[in-house]
Amino acid sequence: MIHSARPPLPLADPDALQPAPGAPATEATRLAPDASVAVAAELERMLTNRTLQAFPYGSEYTALWQHVSACALGGKLVRPRLLLGTYDALVAARKEPHPDSGVATERRAAAIRLAAATELLHYSFLLHDDVIDGDLTRRNRPNLIGAVLESRATAHPQHEDPTPRDLHWAHTSGILMGDLMLSIAHQVIAREALPQNVRIHMLDLLDRTVVESVAGEHLDVGLSDRVISPDLDTVLWMSQLKTATYTFEFPLRAAAILAESSTATISALGEIGRHLGLAFQLQDDLLSTFGNPQEHGKDAFSDLREGKETALIAFARETYAWPEISISFGASDLRMESGIRIRELLRDCGAERAVQQLISDQVAECFARCASDDGAVPAEVAACIEQLVAGLEGRRS
Amino acid sequence: MIHSARPPLPLADPDALQPAPGAPATEATRLAPDASVAVAAELERMLTNRTLQAFPYGSEYTALWQHVSACALGGKLVRPRLLLGTYDALVAARKEPHPDSGVATERRAAAIRLAAATELLHYSFLLHDDVIDGDLTRRNRPNLIGAVLESRATAHPQHEDPTPRDLHWAHTSGILMGDLMLSIAHQVIAREALPQNVRIHMLDLLDRTVVESVAGEHLDVGLSDRVISPDLDTVLWMSQLKTATYTFEFPLRAAAILAESSTATISALGEIGRHLGLAFQLQDDLLSTFGNPQEHGKDAFSDLREGKETALIAFARETYAWPEISISFGASDLRMESGIRIRELLRDCGAERAVQQLISDQVAECFARCASDDGAVPAEVAACIEQLVAGLEGRRS
Repeated sequence: MIHSARPPLPLADPDALQPAPGAPATEATRLAPDASVAVAAELERMLTNRTLQAFPYGSEYTALWQHVSACALGGKLVRPRLLLGTYDALVAARKEPHPDSGVATERRAAAIRLAAATELLHYSFLLHDDVIDGDLTRRNRPNLIGAVLESRATAHPQHEDPTPRDLHWAHTSGILMGDLMLSIAHQVIAREALPQNVRIHMLDLLDRTVVESVAGEHLDVGLSDRVISPDLDTVLWMSQLKTATYTFEFPLRAAAILAESSTATISALGEIGRHLGLAFQLQDDLLSTFGNPQEHGKDAFSDLREGKETALIAFARETYAWPEISISFGASDLRMESGIRIRELLRDCGAERAVQQLISDQVAECFARCASDDGAVPAEVAACIEQLVAGLEGRRS
Repeated sequence: MIHSARPPLPLADPDALQPAPGAPATEATRLAPDASVAVAAELERMLTNRTLQAFPYGSEYTALWQHVSACALGGKLVRPRLLLGTYDALVAARKEPHPDSGVATERRAAAIRLAAATELLHYSFLLHDDVIDGDLTRRNRPNLIGAVLESRATAHPQHEDPTPRDLHWAHTSGILMGDLMLSIAHQVIAREALPQNVRIHMLDLLDRTVVESVAGEHLDVGLSDRVISPDLDTVLWMSQLKTATYTFEFPLRAAAILAESSTATISALGEIGRHLGLAFQLQDDLLSTFGNPQEHGKDAFSDLREGKETALIAFARETYAWPEISISFGASDLRMESGIRIRELLRDCGAERAVQQLISDQVAECFARCASDDGAVPAEVAACIEQLVAGLEGRRS
């Protein structure tokens, strides 16, 4: 593990696949900058068509689609860019270009569509997650549920709080639109005219991704609802299933399947995705607790208030600090002083350091896999991934 | 319309595709009796495999799969039998058998898998419908949410009522398992190695079916939550979208697409499906209000108590009876005497008769389409559909 002596590397929201300012443009990075533009255009095309399709079903349904389009187009496209950037790097790494340039062009168009589908899958999970958690905002703005409630508030301004009927209507909208997003993600992938073996491979990956993400969400809620008992292994496994699989492993593997890479490459990229995904989620937990809420856009102590079972908490449970933390952990009326005190305790008992170390280990494993001389990860792709990690150093949100 | 003089025909839960006792066995009905067995076996195979796959994700997730399998296997398989029975009738109607018997056998196996997927799609909608409506039972037995609550009650018997955490856990389970069922239905259809044009046609049908079912559910909830104002046209349209499309139109069209029938046949079957589906839903509304609750398995006045916007109610709104009905309609504490009184009023004001007439009209349209001499509906298929309607005369649930 050549990189194991590196200091803990904070991973960040990846502008990853864009070359850092002044970085030499390799073939892989040269291909990447248009990724955001291409995917955003494809996503907008899909959502606009769907919104137009919604018109015959009435004004309320159309309004819902308009909300959804606005919410779904506001993301940072992390997963699509990861997919498309990796695909381009894999193609650039080839000794010879595809003999039929028409096929090559069509395949890249498919990569853009699949990248957009990845964002719809992500958005589907977010929609149901927000229903399950009862959240009304995301990144300091109303989420779909919040937007529906706002539109109802305009309809009867005499009520200060949402009525139970309006809440029901808003949550129903979240469930149903999540279903549609999930369905559309499947549709996009199923429709590609890929060779049957590539198609089945892609569907297998999608299937496992959905199953694992659902299992992870189920585990997460089981932990919060105290149906499943928390320990560090269970919490790490939950993070892996709930977030790492679909956020990192899916885009990396999908890129390699679509590029018809070797089994060794597909599986190496899957392994890298698992490490990066877990590191990303762990850093998310650190940021939510220790980061600046104005930058990460979440309420300062929301994880503590909700009693969210993170790796930080699982570690702290086994230390002297737990009896004091447990007094206010999960209290919906947690006050700022208590939040600050829990933060101090999480630092003092070694939980923060332990999680930083876990991140560092995952990143080291990822670099080791990239650097392995078995040739499974082409240099262009390894460069892309190292950039992803390095470009994330300043992550604040 | 040769059948327009028929009396209103109550449609029923179809043992439809089984020959009525003593009925002469046509080619189509001869093929049908194994439909339930074949589909049930396929469904059980799918759910067993999925339950085995769940083991690595822990005991709670596995327990959920066990609940789901028990609930999903308990249905009457109306939709799958409709699909497979129609497929068999279409194949039987052919002048010449398929030149390659291997292809014919494989295509029928695909029809069985697609029929099973139709049941999973149905179950996915039921799961989310139960979450949205807050229902804990279905057909006098606990639904998935009820089953999860029961298992939690065993875990802490000191609580008489479910705790908020247990309710949250049970609803989350319903949302997540609904997502999985929807995802698996897509997977089954996407994986079939059909010719690309047949595959795309099938995916188009699935897409429209999901979009319309979601739009219908959205409209239904909008009516109940008083966001959308009720009138007869809106309520009929909601029934069409929410139930008729996926229950009748989808299986009939899917059978014809899979059998590679002509465009005329596919579209005639779609039209028949829309008429039958609406008739079926309207009769469901009649049964819920006027039927015997011990037979149909729903609480006697649940539709009235929930304030469900049915065609009966939409009709009654426009009559002298509405002011009196509206006093207790939608009251969660509706008493038996009030329920009986509303029932009387719905009869006296002509709402029951009007809905019976609507059903009769839909059935007449369906028969007219079957009997049309444009040849779009082969005699074997028409026989199958007439049996479906006739075999349903005694519907009580």
